[in-house]
Amino acid sequence: MRMIKFETDYQEGASPEILARLASTNLEQTSGYGNDPHCSRAKDLIRREIGRPDAAIYFMAGGTQTNTTVIKHLLTPCEGVIAVSTGHINVHESGAIESTGHKVLTLPSHDGLLCAEELRSYMEAFNADPTNEHMVQPGMVYVSYSSEYGTVYTKSHLAEIKRACEDYGLKLFVDGARLGAGLVSSGADMAMNDIAGLCDVFYIGGTKNGALLGEAVVFPNPESVNLKQFTTIIKQQGGLLAKGRLLGIQFEVLFEDGLFYRNAEHANIQAMKIKRAFIERNIPFLIDSPTNQQFPILTRQQHETLSEKFSYETWQPLDDGRLAVRFCTSWATTDDNINELIQEIQQL
Amino acid sequence: MRMIKFETDYQEGASPEILARLASTNLEQTSGYGNDPHCSRAKDLIRREIGRPDAAIYFMAGGTQTNTTVIKHLLTPCEGVIAVSTGHINVHESGAIESTGHKVLTLPSHDGLLCAEELRSYMEAFNADPTNEHMVQPGMVYVSYSSEYGTVYTKSHLAEIKRACEDYGLKLFVDGARLGAGLVSSGADMAMNDIAGLCDVFYIGGTKNGALLGEAVVFPNPESVNLKQFTTIIKQQGGLLAKGRLLGIQFEVLFEDGLFYRNAEHANIQAMKIKRAFIERNIPFLIDSPTNQQFPILTRQQHETLSEKFSYETWQPLDDGRLAVRFCTSWATTDDNINELIQEIQQL
Amino acid sequence: MRMIKFETDYQEGASPEILARLASTNLEQTSGYGNDPHCSRAKDLIRREIGRPDAAIYFMAGGTQTNTTVIKHLLTPCEGVIAVSTGHINVHESGAIESTGHKVLTLPSHDGLLCAEELRSYMEAFNADPTNEHMVQPGMVYVSYSSEYGTVYTKSHLAEIKRACEDYGLKLFVDGARLGAGLVSSGADMAMNDIAGLCDVFYIGGTKNGALLGEAVVFPNPESVNLKQFTTIIKQQGGLLAKGRLLGIQFEVLFEDGLFYRNAEHANIQAMKIKRAFIERNIPFLIDSPTNQQFPILTRQQHETLSEKFSYETWQPLDDGRLAVRFCTSWATTDDNINELIQEIQQL
Amino acid sequence: MRMIKFETDYQEGASPEILARLASTNLEQTSGYGNDPHCSRAKDLIRREIGRPDAAIYFMAGGTQTNTTVIKHLLTPCEGVIAVSTGHINVHESGAIESTGHKVLTLPSHDGLLCAEELRSYMEAFNADPTNEHMVQPGMVYVSYSSEYGTVYTKSHLAEIKRACEDYGLKLFVDGARLGAGLVSSGADMAMNDIAGLCDVFYIGGTKNGALLGEAVVFPNPESVNLKQFTTIIKQQGGLLAKGRLLGIQFEVLFEDGLFYRNAEHANIQAMKIKRAFIERNIPFLIDSPTNQQFPILTRQQHETLSEKFSYETWQPLDDGRLAVRFCTSWATTDDNINELIQEIQQL
Repeated sequence: MRMIKFETDYQEGASPEILARLASTNLEQTSGYGNDPHCSRAKDLIRREIGRPDAAIYFMAGGTQTNTTVIKHLLTPCEGVIAVSTGHINVHESGAIESTGHKVLTLPSHDGLLCAEELRSYMEAFNADPTNEHMVQPGMVYVSYSSEYGTVYTKSHLAEIKRACEDYGLKLFVDGARLGAGLVSSGADMAMNDIAGLCDVFYIGGTKNGALLGEAVVFPNPESVNLKQFTTIIKQQGGLLAKGRLLGIQFEVLFEDGLFYRNAEHANIQAMKIKRAFIERNIPFLIDSPTNQQFPILTRQQHETLSEKFSYETWQPLDDGRLAVRFCTSWATTDDNINELIQEIQQL
Repeated sequence: MRMIKFETDYQEGASPEILARLASTNLEQTSGYGNDPHCSRAKDLIRREIGRPDAAIYFMAGGTQTNTTVIKHLLTPCEGVIAVSTGHINVHESGAIESTGHKVLTLPSHDGLLCAEELRSYMEAFNADPTNEHMVQPGMVYVSYSSEYGTVYTKSHLAEIKRACEDYGLKLFVDGARLGAGLVSSGADMAMNDIAGLCDVFYIGGTKNGALLGEAVVFPNPESVNLKQFTTIIKQQGGLLAKGRLLGIQFEVLFEDGLFYRNAEHANIQAMKIKRAFIERNIPFLIDSPTNQQFPILTRQQHETLSEKFSYETWQPLDDGRLAVRFCTSWATTDDNINELIQEIQQL
Repeated sequence: MRMIKFETDYQEGASPEILARLASTNLEQTSGYGNDPHCSRAKDLIRREIGRPDAAIYFMAGGTQTNTTVIKHLLTPCEGVIAVSTGHINVHESGAIESTGHKVLTLPSHDGLLCAEELRSYMEAFNADPTNEHMVQPGMVYVSYSSEYGTVYTKSHLAEIKRACEDYGLKLFVDGARLGAGLVSSGADMAMNDIAGLCDVFYIGGTKNGALLGEAVVFPNPESVNLKQFTTIIKQQGGLLAKGRLLGIQFEVLFEDGLFYRNAEHANIQAMKIKRAFIERNIPFLIDSPTNQQFPILTRQQHETLSEKFSYETWQPLDDGRLAVRFCTSWATTDDNINELIQEIQQL
Repeated sequence: MRMIKFETDYQEGASPEILARLASTNLEQTSGYGNDPHCSRAKDLIRREIGRPDAAIYFMAGGTQTNTTVIKHLLTPCEGVIAVSTGHINVHESGAIESTGHKVLTLPSHDGLLCAEELRSYMEAFNADPTNEHMVQPGMVYVSYSSEYGTVYTKSHLAEIKRACEDYGLKLFVDGARLGAGLVSSGADMAMNDIAGLCDVFYIGGTKNGALLGEAVVFPNPESVNLKQFTTIIKQQGGLLAKGRLLGIQFEVLFEDGLFYRNAEHANIQAMKIKRAFIERNIPFLIDSPTNQQFPILTRQQHETLSEKFSYETWQPLDDGRLAVRFCTSWATTDDNINELIQEIQQL
């Protein structure tokens, strides 16, 4: 029997507009490694989007690679990166950050978010510690927007973190693997240019928002960071695609006329339908997420029933035997699949 | 004015059959990270191709990543990899191998190829050196097929290298970024299953032979290598594509009915036309290459004339002022472009 | 005014017996890098001490170097090392472990000790996690004896940890920077040969127990670990002393006739005097330590008074304004200094 | 039968003056990690020696550690260090440099020395290479004084190299493991302050010149290098001795009244006696070295005779069957041993 998959947001191919453009440009001859007109135009479209004509932009193939490369480039060898304990770099990247020599320094996760006050306390304690010359030097803060728990920072929350970073000499990096879903969510009070204004570097996730693959790293103020060797570091980390146009073409299509936002909106709308269905059935949530990841808490019985027909991620077993799970929607989630799921939820 | 590009073999998109398949499978739901039916089928097709039903196969996004991941996985922290000085890992990967802690130990390049006798002498000298506990331990030999200079190993040459590797406890890794061009060339007396039989690991290059991106790493005898953590290492190196099917689908198309070989043959045929044109014009070559990379030696005058209309790579300035350059063809090189080039060569 | 120092156990030189032996052997000619008769004899003495004639033993210059080298050698590139959050490798080694690519995976610290049950739960959760291929693979457990809080494992506690390690395929590494102080403490129910029987590797700290510098790494069952390249790794990590005899001579002296234990006993006896003085003055402790590190909790007033004449480490500010501090004694702590301190404590 | 050892310059203990000082200061209480009065005074003595009151100075335990730490600190992750192929970092450090992620880029060795013109040509070729963004970026030049072949740079030679470094944006690092032997040799036309004026960083070797262990890293112009985190990096690399005074005390003694130079002079004088004996016997040399390493070329017969009573290093087998060997003297080489050797040479 066919399983309907809600495991994640990368289980289909790419937006048809992207495939069409790949086909129509297929025989153009271009230089490799991102030195092509499509990458140039895609960068211009993103610069326009964030209102920063001087932003430096680089395309990379995937999120782990992007996180690793950016962190490796911006830290000195004895600096570490601060993240919440649930941060992707701390949990699900197989030690990629450590493989480049950098420790991930963890703070508590509040539904996936970092608390600016806790960051300040951490830095105060570090600076007051007489043995801190023997410790990893905090050099950067990493946050995710939207977070690994589907939550989003408000503008004032991110601004508070940014101020703390400035006060303690830390760079701020926003992982935007699911930036689209965050920005178009009901929880968002920011646009992409606000993000750009509140960090040293962020990336725009393509893979989880309708591209075949690809993330766009954005340095909004390139003069404040030494980027002379950034392309060489991308190459060293294995992230410089020979046919770099593959990334440029996709971001061109995503940012020409708002496809990036339409894809994210579709995913969120479908997620909200699921959310409502669980709420109406009085099934609680681990977290109140406004984005395309939803975390209902199922009894074992409910889980057994649902998992006959639907696949989704087991997130976290609770002490009382229940199971927090994750349903994830995407730009491609169909109404049919949503309706089948809702019907099943109603009968739980 | 339009420049006709012969710089490299990754300046167009992908074989139309690949784009078509991406479109026809686009809305299928599959699990991520290569756990999908397309990757499974592609692996089976490759296993059939090399006659090794037990081979372990992994897909990765690009060549540098593949080289780095394989080498990092197979060496201990104090082992190095032996390569000819012109080897890709020694020259053009921005220190990716060293970034994982491993030294590249170089031997002389003979038109891009490694000499088995020199390998033996090197190992004899190393083993005889009373201070070798203070030296990088040779753990692996890296060769390219076809090489960075377009040349190919004969079967007996590769077998000699393999025997030396066995005699000295070295693993043998064949970089097949341009495996297709090598195997279908007039210089080849091997098929892919011969390569598989003569090394511990090799990879089949997709990027330079008609795929959008992608390389297939093949361990012909997986029981002889500990692969339990290989997927985790791929993830750590940033090479585990979320939409792994993108790689599986492409290798399915390449190996279903021989497209992999047809693409390579087309590239070689177009290269031979260029080669003949230069020969007829009495223009000498740096190297006698039977594959899709050709290295004529141009006078400055000839170079100025040709480079008005055609772009190609400057390879190496010679002491007498002339310039060795590289013309590279691909699965997509058109007859029109070849004919324009030939005409121009004839008039040099 | 002269400050009396109780900051740590490495603020004096070396046991006079060691200096005397360095002088009497000074003009002997020996080979470098530990290939000398003194290192050989020192190894034999340690093998005798632990009753394991086949143990493999290596001398290194310091603790951080030893931890890093052992961990780097025994883990694969995607494995991490489990330690309590207060473990030295997690806090005070400037990211040395991460600098070799390995993540430190933390469990709660119970007065510096690791709980075997929590280790089991951690491994159960890891093994049950369907995404664990994307996570750092636990490969080793690191514990300190005595711990960074002066506490010691009982034999049954360490045996429990060892059983858990065996059940989950983890190596067990005992950091013995302060092994002597632990073994001769009132909290100990083990001898060094018990430690040897309950781990895969441990080291015997010389620096903090009367040597100028030096730690002895012991692999009790060398056949179970590949040590062929261990000397090369020591060299790579910068830990192979040219005049390796400097380490061998010191461990000879320490293990010829029990100086190692006498030094530690002296330190503990002096520490107990301090402990009693604080107890009699009704000053509480952060932790009940039976070894040469004592952690009284001082009011700000008490701290101001004591710190006029004595230096010691500020350990941890408490929420109520008080300060946990550390007094540390050594093989060289004099009765005079102890008496001056006790007098001052009595008048607090 | 007793073998007389001429293998290397670290086969005895330390200058008696050093041992005496260790004894007389043994019970002083000092802070750890180099924060003690002896390290301070030793730094002042070195600053006076080179006439640079602002120089930043750090003590480390050994040469490989020093090389690795300095190079790691001064290079960005995609930069490499240029050295001659015979350079210690390229051959005899077990890949320590690569273990921190940096490639050693090699130029030809001219009796152990680097040619400034070849350095310029290398950099010109690098800068002209259109693909250099995919290559390791040269960031530093490493030279040894005296070299691994006993030779020394003249002042004008080193100045030429320094100018090339400045012209191409490279830092210059002088490995002074055998600095003393170089400076007091007949080949030297420089003093230590000249070295300080011609490089960005150098180190003064103690281990091979009469110390038990220890090297002093000197940054003559500390304002030109970011040293804020240098102590943390030393700790991360495992090079921060707990009893740092052990290094400070030794350098105090070496630089108080010229012992550093007297030790080196003694070694050179003894080496010259050996050299003369071989010359008088008409035995040729691989290299004309003015320092404490001498490289005569022996027939197999001569080698068999000499090696019955003397041990020395086999350096390099020649194609004609003869053997280049190394005789090395030290601060401790006795007249008796020299005379026995000379007698034997005369009878070859």
